[in-house]
Amino acid sequence: MHQDRNILNESIKRLLRRGAIRHLRKIVNKTHAADLAAMFRILTFNEQRKLFAVIEEMEKKGVILEDLDEDTLRALTQAMAVEDIVEILESMPKDDAADLIGRLPEEKADAILEQMKKEGSEEVEDLLGYDDDTAGGIMVPDFIALGENMTAAEAIALLQTDYHDVEMPFYLYVVDEYGKLVGVSSLRQLVVVKPDTRLKDFMATDVMSVQTHVDQEEVAKLVARYDFLAVPVVDETNRLVGIVTVDDVIDIFREEATEDILKMAGAGEDFVESKSILRSARIRMPWLLASALGGVLAFLIIGHYEDSLMKVAYLAAFIPVIMGMGGNIGTQSSTIIVRGLATGRILVQDFRTVVLREFTTGLILGILYGLLVGSVAQFSYGRLTVALSVALAVLSSMTVAALVGSLVPMLFARANIDPAIATGPFVTTAIDIISVFFYFEIATSLLGI
Amino acid sequence: MHQDRNILNESIKRLLRRGAIRHLRKIVNKTHAADLAAMFRILTFNEQRKLFAVIEEMEKKGVILEDLDEDTLRALTQAMAVEDIVEILESMPKDDAADLIGRLPEEKADAILEQMKKEGSEEVEDLLGYDDDTAGGIMVPDFIALGENMTAAEAIALLQTDYHDVEMPFYLYVVDEYGKLVGVSSLRQLVVVKPDTRLKDFMATDVMSVQTHVDQEEVAKLVARYDFLAVPVVDETNRLVGIVTVDDVIDIFREEATEDILKMAGAGEDFVESKSILRSARIRMPWLLASALGGVLAFLIIGHYEDSLMKVAYLAAFIPVIMGMGGNIGTQSSTIIVRGLATGRILVQDFRTVVLREFTTGLILGILYGLLVGSVAQFSYGRLTVALSVALAVLSSMTVAALVGSLVPMLFARANIDPAIATGPFVTTAIDIISVFFYFEIATSLLGI
Repeated sequence: MHQDRNILNESIKRLLRRGAIRHLRKIVNKTHAADLAAMFRILTFNEQRKLFAVIEEMEKKGVILEDLDEDTLRALTQAMAVEDIVEILESMPKDDAADLIGRLPEEKADAILEQMKKEGSEEVEDLLGYDDDTAGGIMVPDFIALGENMTAAEAIALLQTDYHDVEMPFYLYVVDEYGKLVGVSSLRQLVVVKPDTRLKDFMATDVMSVQTHVDQEEVAKLVARYDFLAVPVVDETNRLVGIVTVDDVIDIFREEATEDILKMAGAGEDFVESKSILRSARIRMPWLLASALGGVLAFLIIGHYEDSLMKVAYLAAFIPVIMGMGGNIGTQSSTIIVRGLATGRILVQDFRTVVLREFTTGLILGILYGLLVGSVAQFSYGRLTVALSVALAVLSSMTVAALVGSLVPMLFARANIDPAIATGPFVTTAIDIISVFFYFEIATSLLGI
Repeated sequence: MHQDRNILNESIKRLLRRGAIRHLRKIVNKTHAADLAAMFRILTFNEQRKLFAVIEEMEKKGVILEDLDEDTLRALTQAMAVEDIVEILESMPKDDAADLIGRLPEEKADAILEQMKKEGSEEVEDLLGYDDDTAGGIMVPDFIALGENMTAAEAIALLQTDYHDVEMPFYLYVVDEYGKLVGVSSLRQLVVVKPDTRLKDFMATDVMSVQTHVDQEEVAKLVARYDFLAVPVVDETNRLVGIVTVDDVIDIFREEATEDILKMAGAGEDFVESKSILRSARIRMPWLLASALGGVLAFLIIGHYEDSLMKVAYLAAFIPVIMGMGGNIGTQSSTIIVRGLATGRILVQDFRTVVLREFTTGLILGILYGLLVGSVAQFSYGRLTVALSVALAVLSSMTVAALVGSLVPMLFARANIDPAIATGPFVTTAIDIISVFFYFEIATSLLGI
């Protein structure tokens, strides 16, 4: 598969260089939109513009635009006529069209919506009214809704003439006379029952749905939990207004995992899509500030023990190992908690059990590594008080780190704040400071300096 | 939704305590299997056993067993008769049944397979022959395969009588006389075309498939890329042997994200499912060893400069900030690279661009934070050479960290080794050591000590 794609990329690049438009058009027409979108990422802007012009199918153009980073998207659409953009948007699933419009400059977006209204496609504008990260923001308004009094035969006839633009024709939703969701059926059931049976007599009535304001992560978890292919979205009065499909759910999970990972590393929240180094430096800068301020604080603490350090200079040599051990076990604990909470393996209700378990793990590993590092100290300097100070410092640093690393994200989760941000540089830096402070307190009192 | 679930959990627990079996059975029968499985996690072993005995539907028992951690699974099945376990397994999708058997003690597994063979369900044993993490290991052998010469009417008739246990009846695969995959169609197409049209005349022939040995992550990416609901799995001769469904793809992505996150934090690979603290300590211990050894190395390096430290003791006070800044920017870089590679936003081919971009970002942020931390040093000690040493140390530490943090995972990816393991404690520790070494080299030569 990879092999094929590389060959494709190479030949498209070569044809672009040679300006062999006819040949290019032939290849492009045979290539899947997702593959074209992937290859767009490795082209220069000029090549992108040329290739985009060659593509004939609006659906393909839509998939490609959807996949572009914001800078390229804006550059590519800037030169295009509003009518051409609208033509592409109208070929796209409406949720994706709404997303795309949301990423364009306001002026352009307004002009596009104006034009779409003229052509009678207001649905996309309606979608823009919902928050991006909610069920309303990710649903498509295209679904199959059948009246509860319809017979199976009538439903089949309707499906044969109608509903050709529906993305996922697998669930047939059943609504009452007010458009309220009352049940669900399937193509397969329509074919299996007697033709004159009414839908309300064989539909499943325990249909699960979400309201428009529900967070997208909740929606995704629901779909994953029950292995749904789609979940219906209703308004406050239970009127069916859209569906969220499983392909969007996959994207949500991947996006949320990326967000969590980046937050934990203190590298922003969204993947830095810009090619600008200055912009990516700007995004990462504030997260490093936490670590810089923490470092300055540690410096002040150590400065406080300057006299002791003059007497026993080699105390300084153990600072890295004590900080490192605390930092690493703290990262382990908080990562396990954050991911466990995200996947449902750890529940907020288990607060005490979870924190206690991490604390005990920290204690056990602290004793172990305290003995190890203490032995190295004893072996190197042959002073038992030094070895003991180092051992105790490692022990306390690791125990406190495991405690803080589990306590903070659990507290955040309980307060409904995203625990992933608790795991970034803030916790690590806090652990650093605590470790250094404990170390010098223990050492100076044991050594009597 | 959450509210409801809490109420459910509470009432089930209460009924278990009271031993109100009849009442319990009524509630359990009305509860979705996924909800029962979720509630199992917060019960004691005794409660689990009691509740499990009350459940009547085999499908529900299957979903619950599938979701249990290994310890509980083994304990719960230990007391059960082989026949009872087999009855549950036969109600499950075959890929899940095979997974479950793979998690049981060998002796038990063998007895179960023996019994299943007697009852003629060899398919599950066939699945056990594939590697867990490949298309073969995650596929189900239940799919709809229709002969290419069949007419639409014949196909509909067949679907009405047959194929009731198929998990995803949305794609109708078309095979030739040898069972080789030649095309795909859908229920909807069957209903729309003239009844006497042969499948081969309206099926889509550009059907994508994967071979049994393809890695599960590749399969998942393919499904996500093209928004498939399922992808057919073929053997080396292109014979259709199974399908991988979208619900499994969601699980794969979540599992792979968890694996990456845990690896990056140096907290093992699989989520520690055991309730045993000793076991979880044992899994985390080796990862901490890297950090301990690195710490000892840093200690040896600093020990080497003991004489210099005796003269200028406050040099030690800057160790934490220099290590911290390097460590944090290194984590940022490697996290961005690892996640970018996993989601396809960064390509291995872009090696030079990517590493250069990270290096430049490190340089810019290094200058910035070098100036900041250097100013603090100048302000505190009023010695320009000290301030300069600290500033240069921060600069070099951050630049090297960004370089190493991007270079190592890119090299790993190029060599086809999982880049996530490059991001754990190993890289962080390496950066720590380099930072400390540079700092003391710069300081001693600038201060002439």
